[in-house]
Amino acid sequence: MSQSTIGEKAKEEIIYLKALSLKSLEELPNIKEDINRKMIVILRITPLAQKDVEELKKAVEELYEFSVSVGGDIARLGEERIVITPPGVKIWRGL
Amino acid sequence: MSQSTIGEKAKEEIIYLKALSLKSLEELPNIKEDINRKMIVILRITPLAQKDVEELKKAVEELYEFSVSVGGDIARLGEERIVITPPGVKIWRGL
Repeated sequence: MSQSTIGEKAKEEIIYLKALSLKSLEELPNIKEDINRKMIVILRITPLAQKDVEELKKAVEELYEFSVSVGGDIARLGEERIVITPPGVKIWRGL
Repeated sequence: MSQSTIGEKAKEEIIYLKALSLKSLEELPNIKEDINRKMIVILRITPLAQKDVEELKKAVEELYEFSVSVGGDIARLGEERIVITPPGVKIWRGL
C-alpha cells in the first residue's frame, strides 16, 4: 500500500474489517500491523490448529498480549475463529 | 440500556462488535437497531438455516438492503456467519 493510500484512508477515518486465515506464526507481524492500522481482524485459526496446537497456543497468547498492550480487544468467535480489534473498537459481552 | 449509558458511549465514540445468533425474522428489527447504534454485528445464521431456508433468504435480503441503505457493509463469513457493519466500517475485500 502506498503512502498516499494510507493518507486518504486516515482522512476518511474508515475502519476496515479483514477476514484472514492463520497458517503459521510468521503471519503474526502482518496481523499486528493490520491492527495498528486500525483494522479489525477476524482470524480463522483452524489451519494452524490442525498443523500444530502448541504453535496455535503461542500465537493466541501473543495476540492476546498485543491487543491488551495497544488498548484493543480480543475474543473467541465459535470454534474456528478469534476476533482482534484496534483501540476504539470493543467486543460486546452483554449487559 | 439507560439514556445516560448511551450518552457516555457516544462521547467516547467506541464502536462495539456484537456476536449474535439468528433464530427468526422477528430479531431483524433489533439487529438493525444495533447497526444504527454503530455496532458491528457478526450473525450466526445456522439456527435459522436449519429451521427455514426461505426465511433465511428473506432475512439476508432484508439485511443486505438495510446495510446498503444506511451506508454500511455486509459479507459472508464462512458457512455459518454473516457480518453487517455500520457506516464508517467497511469489509476488506483485498487490494
